[in-house]
Amino acid sequence: MNPRVRAIPGSLIRQVADRKRPTSIDLGLGEPTLLPTRAHFEYAMRHVAERGVKYTANAGDPALREAIARHYAYPGLDNGANVCVTAGSQEAMYVTLMTLLDPAQDELLVVEPAFPSYVKMAALDGVACRTVSMLEDDDFAFDADRILAGVTDATRAIVLCSPCNPTSRVLAQDQADVLARALERRHGKHVWLIHDEIYREQTFVDDAAYLAECYPHTIVTNSISKSNALTGLRLGWILAPESFIEQAVKAHAWVTSCTDTFAQHVALHVFASADGIREHASWYAEQRRAVLAALAEHRLRHAPLDGAFYACVRLADGVQSLDAANDLIDNHDVLTIPGSAFGKALEGWLRLSWVAPVEQVREGIARIAAYCATAPVSS
Amino acid sequence: MNPRVRAIPGSLIRQVADRKRPTSIDLGLGEPTLLPTRAHFEYAMRHVAERGVKYTANAGDPALREAIARHYAYPGLDNGANVCVTAGSQEAMYVTLMTLLDPAQDELLVVEPAFPSYVKMAALDGVACRTVSMLEDDDFAFDADRILAGVTDATRAIVLCSPCNPTSRVLAQDQADVLARALERRHGKHVWLIHDEIYREQTFVDDAAYLAECYPHTIVTNSISKSNALTGLRLGWILAPESFIEQAVKAHAWVTSCTDTFAQHVALHVFASADGIREHASWYAEQRRAVLAALAEHRLRHAPLDGAFYACVRLADGVQSLDAANDLIDNHDVLTIPGSAFGKALEGWLRLSWVAPVEQVREGIARIAAYCATAPVSS
Repeated sequence: MNPRVRAIPGSLIRQVADRKRPTSIDLGLGEPTLLPTRAHFEYAMRHVAERGVKYTANAGDPALREAIARHYAYPGLDNGANVCVTAGSQEAMYVTLMTLLDPAQDELLVVEPAFPSYVKMAALDGVACRTVSMLEDDDFAFDADRILAGVTDATRAIVLCSPCNPTSRVLAQDQADVLARALERRHGKHVWLIHDEIYREQTFVDDAAYLAECYPHTIVTNSISKSNALTGLRLGWILAPESFIEQAVKAHAWVTSCTDTFAQHVALHVFASADGIREHASWYAEQRRAVLAALAEHRLRHAPLDGAFYACVRLADGVQSLDAANDLIDNHDVLTIPGSAFGKALEGWLRLSWVAPVEQVREGIARIAAYCATAPVSS
Repeated sequence: MNPRVRAIPGSLIRQVADRKRPTSIDLGLGEPTLLPTRAHFEYAMRHVAERGVKYTANAGDPALREAIARHYAYPGLDNGANVCVTAGSQEAMYVTLMTLLDPAQDELLVVEPAFPSYVKMAALDGVACRTVSMLEDDDFAFDADRILAGVTDATRAIVLCSPCNPTSRVLAQDQADVLARALERRHGKHVWLIHDEIYREQTFVDDAAYLAECYPHTIVTNSISKSNALTGLRLGWILAPESFIEQAVKAHAWVTSCTDTFAQHVALHVFASADGIREHASWYAEQRRAVLAALAEHRLRHAPLDGAFYACVRLADGVQSLDAANDLIDNHDVLTIPGSAFGKALEGWLRLSWVAPVEQVREGIARIAAYCATAPVSS
């Protein structure tokens, strides 16, 4: 067996989530609870009836590639040749890292706290990986100078997720500018920025930065999973300079061949209307208001809810997040994810998702507050 | 960039196929031309209406894993834990090779003529690859002794596709037995057999061998792409010993997370009836009879049509297959695939697919026969 695969530990997130019972309040879940819009599927069904579900080109249906590029209209990335359609943003990121990084010499810099996938994917490909942690004292705000301090001569790419899973922070425009200008001033081979935009449609601040707008060597990954409650459909994409896409398509072609044609037609219908990708935005905004009210009522310390659909809550000093998450699911029937699943910077915190029905989210937060007020310090 | 990705050449198959015109007779296509059964999709649509399209577990929906394992009922591989559902058989093979082979020491043995994916996937992962060619004089019949002669101390796995794309040959039971017994007698670490069964439902001989029935260290990859005209749906699986699946699921989890839930429900409906996976078998049998008649009428030398939906046709001595394929599409408006795309053993041959309407297949074969009778030898 490949020792790199053997070395992958089991998922801490799944380990905690597996303790969920039918009665549990689920604040662990990383997927929308809304039902998707039926019209998107009916459109895809009409295509099946008329044309079946043939392969598309490896890079995806030309009309979908064009629709995606035009929707985002990032400078220099605004036509179909800038898009490779993938099996969700997970394959988008996997193919991006595989295409970009030479295992013999390149290093990936991961901005933490972060979803564990970037580090695991790099390990799977034998690529060296370095992490740089945003600070608890800053509520994990993206800090360009801290990120830049993590860059070495071997760094070929920096990956960050904004809006962020898990911290809910959004990269601010001024920090993006600092980052871009500093990278542009570097000598030698340029450093790529990989912007995971999976929570783009859950952005609740006005100064959100899109790296593709301010730095030419940017690769964007995204999908319709979170925006349109289509997590299980596995429809994502890479948006990048054409010369990069040409290489990425070759890797993608041998990993999954092409993306599900049915799912591509669902996506075509989402992008057919200007606001299709934002169809659930008002629901998230409303849900967020209720969550902020509950967090304030119970005086829980939390990182600002700039984006995504998570809230990171600080445990009492000395409480280990895995102990707390286990205690909460076993004894208080609330599922949360321990901060330690996202890097050591988030130890002492819990990640709550807030996509369950609002009364359950409120009750869950109340139980967590009661727990935080009384929990013993971990031995 | 990763030099392994850069080094992947463009696809020879696509290069020829891109010269197709609207008027062309298409004998190049590797996908069924039938429309899929609508009831499979309606079942999946009911699931979407009721439950949306949430993530499944990484390894797939437990009911689908169980249905697949029970349908094939291979010894020791007959329960859900033996299955990992993937984005088509392409991801199944990619994840299998990545999980099984240690790039630092293992070698893959590919039985040629073969679809180019195995060699390309190994290259992508930095795994050494050796090929062993079946003989033109045997019409490319699978020959266990020749395969065994290709095994070295470093060989960790042998991959073969039966029924075979491109040769249409099927591994016979007596040859499978020779192969299995010889591998069992070897000392040291066992050699895995990877059986690509993608054309299993297009088998036209009685002595077809299924390696999972005669050798315990067998991994099977398959999908509903070819059996049910669902190529674009990207729904495949790995069927293997549980200890292997446990490792493979970890790799799969970071490559694509999980497979499209909609597609998994289409597959659940296919497997809900005992004959769902064979629903197009009689159409293929009938089509094959017409092809055999046309090949005989025009006295074209071809490999026996044991399985799959291809016919390999011998060109005149000295004619290069790429020249012939280019000439045929440019001057005779018939798309075929040059044998050289499948390894040097098939140089001097063309692969024809025979899934186009039967009158087009007949006309295409007539034009190829006329071409073969008059074609100049390549310079």
